Amino acid sequence: MNEQPEKIFEDLTRFFENRKFADLRIALLDMEPADIAAFMEQELGETERLMFFRLLPKELASDVFSEFDADTQENLIKAFTDKELKAVIDDMFMDDTVDLIEEMPANVVKRILKNSDPENRKQINELLEYPEDSAGSIMTTEYVSFSAKMTVDGAFDKIRRTGLDKETVYTCYVTDGKRKLIGVVTVKKLLLSEKTALVENIMDTGIITALTTDDKEQVAMKFSKYDFLALPVVDREGCLVGIVTVDDAVDVLQEEATEDIQKMAAILPTEKPYLKQSIWSIYRARIPWLLLLMISATFTSLILSSYEHRLAAIASGATLYAFVPMLMDTAGNAGSQSSVTVIRALALGEISFRDLFKILWKEMRVAVLLAFSVAAVCFAKLLLIDRLYNEVTVTIALIVSGVLMLTIIMAKFVGCLLPLFAKKLKLDPAVVASPFITTIVDALALIVYCSIAIAILA
Amino acid sequence: MNEQPEKIFEDLTRFFENRKFADLRIALLDMEPADIAAFMEQELGETERLMFFRLLPKELASDVFSEFDADTQENLIKAFTDKELKAVIDDMFMDDTVDLIEEMPANVVKRILKNSDPENRKQINELLEYPEDSAGSIMTTEYVSFSAKMTVDGAFDKIRRTGLDKETVYTCYVTDGKRKLIGVVTVKKLLLSEKTALVENIMDTGIITALTTDDKEQVAMKFSKYDFLALPVVDREGCLVGIVTVDDAVDVLQEEATEDIQKMAAILPTEKPYLKQSIWSIYRARIPWLLLLMISATFTSLILSSYEHRLAAIASGATLYAFVPMLMDTAGNAGSQSSVTVIRALALGEISFRDLFKILWKEMRVAVLLAFSVAAVCFAKLLLIDRLYNEVTVTIALIVSGVLMLTIIMAKFVGCLLPLFAKKLKLDPAVVASPFITTIVDALALIVYCSIAIAILA
Repeated sequence: MNEQPEKIFEDLTRFFENRKFADLRIALLDMEPADIAAFMEQELGETERLMFFRLLPKELASDVFSEFDADTQENLIKAFTDKELKAVIDDMFMDDTVDLIEEMPANVVKRILKNSDPENRKQINELLEYPEDSAGSIMTTEYVSFSAKMTVDGAFDKIRRTGLDKETVYTCYVTDGKRKLIGVVTVKKLLLSEKTALVENIMDTGIITALTTDDKEQVAMKFSKYDFLALPVVDREGCLVGIVTVDDAVDVLQEEATEDIQKMAAILPTEKPYLKQSIWSIYRARIPWLLLLMISATFTSLILSSYEHRLAAIASGATLYAFVPMLMDTAGNAGSQSSVTVIRALALGEISFRDLFKILWKEMRVAVLLAFSVAAVCFAKLLLIDRLYNEVTVTIALIVSGVLMLTIIMAKFVGCLLPLFAKKLKLDPAVVASPFITTIVDALALIVYCSIAIAILA
Repeated sequence: MNEQPEKIFEDLTRFFENRKFADLRIALLDMEPADIAAFMEQELGETERLMFFRLLPKELASDVFSEFDADTQENLIKAFTDKELKAVIDDMFMDDTVDLIEEMPANVVKRILKNSDPENRKQINELLEYPEDSAGSIMTTEYVSFSAKMTVDGAFDKIRRTGLDKETVYTCYVTDGKRKLIGVVTVKKLLLSEKTALVENIMDTGIITALTTDDKEQVAMKFSKYDFLALPVVDREGCLVGIVTVDDAVDVLQEEATEDIQKMAAILPTEKPYLKQSIWSIYRARIPWLLLLMISATFTSLILSSYEHRLAAIASGATLYAFVPMLMDTAGNAGSQSSVTVIRALALGEISFRDLFKILWKEMRVAVLLAFSVAAVCFAKLLLIDRLYNEVTVTIALIVSGVLMLTIIMAKFVGCLLPLFAKKLKLDPAVVASPFITTIVDALALIVYCSIAIAILA
């Protein structure tokens, strides 16, 4: 799958069509589940896909199944016999089963639960109860646990006995009789210790944990901070209830970045990949902000109208109008530079509300530098370029570039404060701050521009 | 460090100030290197920091050192004796050493290289030659390798002998006599196999690799696609030269998301955390786009001016002006919704240029739906709200909402195509498409608005 995916996809198709199933299985064993799933979704029709799935080596089947889109999963489940469904579900990791159930319609969920082991069903139901976006909702219950008095040799025996079905064996957890988490030990540590050493003597007790109710983004950030491979999740009593593995943390980080990007672009966050989204779901994600911002632009119309007569009375009123878009766009850009910087730094945990004055002081100095530079260039541009097609006097050039300077500073002021206060009020900074910045800053820029122009020219 | 970081920081300070070094070392052994580094940077002055560093348990020192900011690292190195420096450098992972060297001034680099083992120095110099942003620049050379004829027992012996200094032992690499990569075997697989089995019989040969010259973002994306813990990096001859571990891949994914967010907000990408950036570096990152976009707004001024006389001749000319900001903002929002969606989907590998028609077809249907809804609401708003403060006739309301409908469709058209063509031309979609969308769409909206208004009303 490395150099030429097309070539391997062609091989698979040929083996499959010519019923060379032995060759097919050999080729499949060398492939990653994600690539097999991609092949089956891209190259095969629904009936072929079910036939192909039945040919998959048993140890690969549930891994491949976990990689499918929800639609493919649903269609396959509907075509599965109860026995097939049970085999796949029993072999899947608990967190993947929960993800699957969350995507399926009620009748399919019923069939999945009916075909799970009673023990698994209980765990699935518990996992389903954790709030969306919580650590509990992304954790899995397949971890290796030791008791403190085990020897290193005993620990390895337990890994050999139970490891095949665990999501990771590399970080193992030490619990007491009441399932309370008391230590963590890695396989590396086990390998480098004497075989007769006791687990309690080599385990690490300074454990970083997550609560089941912690926000999944906070949990994922711990992976990027501490370079963990897995993180234990405990309940309020400190009992171990599951683990989050680094692959799920990576997915959460990517999703959160995508969501923040969407919010900054005035889109409601969506979870599905773009090509899988229906027209209506894209529409629903985009229409609210588009409408809201269109309506809130009433303020700018109102401001322009209220100055209208006084501007019209000035000889150069029409000339002044010509620079409104430039002023508003520059103010918007200046504001979103600051707000986006602050929003991202908040998301990465680089800053918090108590850095308010440090941030404001920094932004204001940058704002002054930027305002002077942009205003100076604008002044020159007005007298060199815009004068060619418009009646730009030195007074007008001074007014326009002076107002530009003021609005850049105002925009940066609003742009850095708004996300910080949103965070403080436990609102989402990306939602509150980003799309609104333009509306607020536009209105401010217009008021300043019109009143200064009238005061000087009228 | 889990529940109360402040409490632990206080403990550390108390132990340190009261010279209770035994207690201090016990507390430190329970902490993560990232937290110790945070404590030392936040709570200690420069002299204290050096004293504190000398108290760190030897096995923690280089891990903590790797977590410091470049400034702290530079100051410490300047204060280190040659022996101290050598101890830290010898113990650091190769990729961290290379990161360090890339941040340090020339004289410090010289001292680092002088105090490295000749073998390490050779490797460092090789790693330094890989292009920035390549897989070679983020890989490390500390991996475990086996020969094919080793037994499982022999493999474990090798891990026990050499594992302590390896960045990961969980994925091991099988090479032939010429260092050519021929297989991968995980510790899990080793643990679950017979002790006398040969590595060549249990290794996985369908290996996904990266080339030293591959883009580091592409490499990081493979981690999120395949859920790897490590990825081998080979040269053009297929010889194993290093590995990338998942923690570095996570950092790359986070950095790339931050860079894309910055580019979308008209900021040049920066690498340092916000609070560590100087006023000048923030200024330099923001001024180019702010100036460029201010100057390119000349187009909108030019368009407005060129229609000026004809608009002024219309009785309701001033009323028409009042809706220019609303039209432009809505067009800008509609355009950036599409461009940002496409840019992110490109970055996540969900779409590529060959999906052009699929995307365009999808976006155009969404655009029509959005355009109708927004225009309908706008029409109602004009006659219900804006009429209260402005002379809005039904004709004007029809013109404004009609033009709004057209500009939303145009904005979505430009917004989805521009990033795709940028990608096709091997330009950065986030840079080319995002900040420019507004300028292009503004100009289009104005031309349509003015010409339609004049055609109907003049």
